[in-house]
Amino acid sequence: MKLNLDRSLKTPLYLQIRSQIRQLILTNELPCGYQLPPERKLATLLGVNRTTVVNAYHELVADGLIQSHVGKGSTVNSLQTIQHSLEGSSKTIYSEEQRVPIQPISWQNFYTSQSERMHNPVLASILDEIGSEDQISFALGSPAGEFYPLKELNEISQVIIRPGNWKAFEYASTIGHYPLRQYLETWLNRQGIDTQPQEILITSGSQQGLDLLTKVFIEPGDYVVMEEPSFLGAIGVFKSSGAHILTVPMDEEGLRTDVLEQILSRHRPKFIYSLPTFQNPTGITMSLERRHQLLKLAYQFHIPIVEDDPYSELYYENKSLPSLKSLDMHEHVIYLGTFSKILFPGLRLGWCVAPSPLLEQLSLAKQHIDLHTSTTTQWIMTEFCNQGLLDKHLPLVRGHYKHQRDAMVAALEEFAPEGLSWTIPAGGYYLWCELPREMKATALLTKAAEKKVAFVPGSAFYVNSGGRSWIRLCFSRHSALTIREGISRLCGAITELLNQPHLGRKTQQPRFSEPLV
Amino acid sequence: MKLNLDRSLKTPLYLQIRSQIRQLILTNELPCGYQLPPERKLATLLGVNRTTVVNAYHELVADGLIQSHVGKGSTVNSLQTIQHSLEGSSKTIYSEEQRVPIQPISWQNFYTSQSERMHNPVLASILDEIGSEDQISFALGSPAGEFYPLKELNEISQVIIRPGNWKAFEYASTIGHYPLRQYLETWLNRQGIDTQPQEILITSGSQQGLDLLTKVFIEPGDYVVMEEPSFLGAIGVFKSSGAHILTVPMDEEGLRTDVLEQILSRHRPKFIYSLPTFQNPTGITMSLERRHQLLKLAYQFHIPIVEDDPYSELYYENKSLPSLKSLDMHEHVIYLGTFSKILFPGLRLGWCVAPSPLLEQLSLAKQHIDLHTSTTTQWIMTEFCNQGLLDKHLPLVRGHYKHQRDAMVAALEEFAPEGLSWTIPAGGYYLWCELPREMKATALLTKAAEKKVAFVPGSAFYVNSGGRSWIRLCFSRHSALTIREGISRLCGAITELLNQPHLGRKTQQPRFSEPLV
Repeated sequence: MKLNLDRSLKTPLYLQIRSQIRQLILTNELPCGYQLPPERKLATLLGVNRTTVVNAYHELVADGLIQSHVGKGSTVNSLQTIQHSLEGSSKTIYSEEQRVPIQPISWQNFYTSQSERMHNPVLASILDEIGSEDQISFALGSPAGEFYPLKELNEISQVIIRPGNWKAFEYASTIGHYPLRQYLETWLNRQGIDTQPQEILITSGSQQGLDLLTKVFIEPGDYVVMEEPSFLGAIGVFKSSGAHILTVPMDEEGLRTDVLEQILSRHRPKFIYSLPTFQNPTGITMSLERRHQLLKLAYQFHIPIVEDDPYSELYYENKSLPSLKSLDMHEHVIYLGTFSKILFPGLRLGWCVAPSPLLEQLSLAKQHIDLHTSTTTQWIMTEFCNQGLLDKHLPLVRGHYKHQRDAMVAALEEFAPEGLSWTIPAGGYYLWCELPREMKATALLTKAAEKKVAFVPGSAFYVNSGGRSWIRLCFSRHSALTIREGISRLCGAITELLNQPHLGRKTQQPRFSEPLV
Repeated sequence: MKLNLDRSLKTPLYLQIRSQIRQLILTNELPCGYQLPPERKLATLLGVNRTTVVNAYHELVADGLIQSHVGKGSTVNSLQTIQHSLEGSSKTIYSEEQRVPIQPISWQNFYTSQSERMHNPVLASILDEIGSEDQISFALGSPAGEFYPLKELNEISQVIIRPGNWKAFEYASTIGHYPLRQYLETWLNRQGIDTQPQEILITSGSQQGLDLLTKVFIEPGDYVVMEEPSFLGAIGVFKSSGAHILTVPMDEEGLRTDVLEQILSRHRPKFIYSLPTFQNPTGITMSLERRHQLLKLAYQFHIPIVEDDPYSELYYENKSLPSLKSLDMHEHVIYLGTFSKILFPGLRLGWCVAPSPLLEQLSLAKQHIDLHTSTTTQWIMTEFCNQGLLDKHLPLVRGHYKHQRDAMVAALEEFAPEGLSWTIPAGGYYLWCELPREMKATALLTKAAEKKVAFVPGSAFYVNSGGRSWIRLCFSRHSALTIREGISRLCGAITELLNQPHLGRKTQQPRFSEPLV
């Protein structure tokens, strides 16, 4: 079936299609029973929007020339039927201009202003190179798959996922599986956090914890305070909620409480967000003194603190400092934890510890969002933890990640060109590196992509501008050998850019297929 | 350690506690090393807020009389230390009035107006009777656990959750596991819904689908249209978003499109929400004619339709009518589906089908909320579906649920007092019953609770007032025998109330421990 569309004509394309097919039918070139191409296929062939073809076929049905059946496509009617329709329609003739096509919905016109705030030029959709087989990515902050305790999990799943144990597949209470909260109570108590099950909400990961807190606390125009740079997932959710984000710089001891004090004397933020231990992206740990100062300011100004704590169990030197939550004597700290970094992220399981009245409100918010976190997942993780397997797992991965961190540092020491500098974190996942001579990280991204190595540019971790000459490297996912190879490629890219600065002007917006954490 | 608090005194309680303990220490009644009770325990003993005790202990630490260690509690200092502190403090004496205690946070002052809208007097937290062993609950709309295909799921989990298959535990793309979306594409195509993987988003259940749509479309003050009565989970999320909900009555053919037309001529809602097949709570199925009328109105007024479709596969007579989505030729329908009712709810897995540009926006919103739905769950369900097990499961449960529906109807026919009437749905989970003589459902709830039977009062499904003499009974969870027993108890309660109407004045706010669906 050959159709020729002429875009220079004033006649809409859908009417051109309809007329031409009509002609082919009436001249019997498309006989009775002939199956017209599916709408999508014809649209692709003609290079038009699918709705254009849909509208054309709709007209042909109305003309009595074809019939469309759901799931079966469109076929040409018999000549008798066509004859009958033509005779019938000759009695009431509508000109083509009078038949108004149904407009597709312009979805943007329906969106909230919050939707518009969700777009972040740094976090657009797909980077072709990431995911390719020989790409070495230091971008995604994810544990290494080879360390997942899958043998143990397999055994546990056989116990949980078995005939008769249907309770593990039912609706559950929003606040979360009680035995899991009991386990977490003990685990948190061991870390000095004095809490009870009714102060623990099971979330679908820390990201949901942040979303819940935003829903409950943040209206557009409200203030929140964050360290800078900070976790990009938090920046994203605060921004899209319409909050004004006030940033506090950091030094080697963490958040600058002197600057914070000035901010708090001028503004009343809804909360202060901090990731005080093995911070993402800087790796910095807030000193004990700063922790006390931060708490003191929170008490003085009556501001809650949201403590995000995914990495404190991943220490490679000494045990981590006590959490803000454990030092908090006045219930000002809301604490977020997760299994994602210490175990595996795919299950989407975390927790939020907060004073009971607040926890009830967060629970109510969660009920509207997803009813509760997966029952089966909670049962499986409870069993895993109760068998002592989390305690067994942690020293293992600490050893592995320390080794990987050291491998990355060694590789940098071996290959780094003059002017590249990096932090050495005492735990967590990331090295935070400053590029030489104020090189733009986004420029490096392109060059690095050519060499099949990736990272996250520093600007992703800044609320406004900033971090343009910084990059975050995650060492948790690869073997020492791969790390060395990847660092070698990266330093090669940096060196090339240093030597040919004019190539640095091409910048690439980073695009990632997986959510960036 | 005996303390006597006198609430009639002007002295704050925390200072009374502190003074009395101070006295006991100075007179050596509490000797060196004595471990003070944990704050929470003392608070319970004294009948005060925990913060009161915390503040008292804080003062005692400042006095040099005790020391507190994280995780170890508070102990009385040695006399030497105390002596030294007292001598030291005599040089700088602060009166008690000058030491300002740290106020706990008044969390309500921080909440958004959305938070306040989350509270629904009908849906408060715990009903003691629900969950008790001999309670027969017709309240929760959940599948029956005995039908869960756990043997098959056990075998599949052994394949998915095994050493080496760490990909099933990693971060995944927000839009969802591609093979699962491919399966759903085929499955939906078979139902006449012409879609592709890039138009399918995997959600953490339909509730999340509603939350995402609300986030993307609804700003406070926007209008949405719903049938009335309607799914209470949807009412809850729309209300808390600040939407004005315009309701459309129903008759035996479903939503009254004549009334809808009047509404649309006056208002511009962001979307029309409908559950057209085996509606929750009424069981009504929208006729084919009404479906076409609804679509026509949507096209005419350029309003999207959100079609919530959890039950259409659970038909007990004829196959369900074609969905609105399958009849939609102009991409106005957003379609929500879920595994919760046809399979099991605990996994929290559903899907949203929408035109690509909108789906991208919903995906972006989801990324901020929980990154992605559980990877492992998606892998397991994909394997389950690809083995044809969903197709195998559905006829089984259709047979079971039909039997249970019939059992409930038979029991009602046997036991129902005069004036009680009920619908007989052609599919789905619920009977929708009108109580005799305008009896209040909330009054019946109390009486029924005494007899250990529960249901959801009709007012839960109304946006404003309404449904006060209606109740929803779910037949999916219990055996025919239990159903008969439960209906017998319920009808007994109704009869008693009819005979002793003055007892009907006591009303009970229903409180449920599990999220009501």
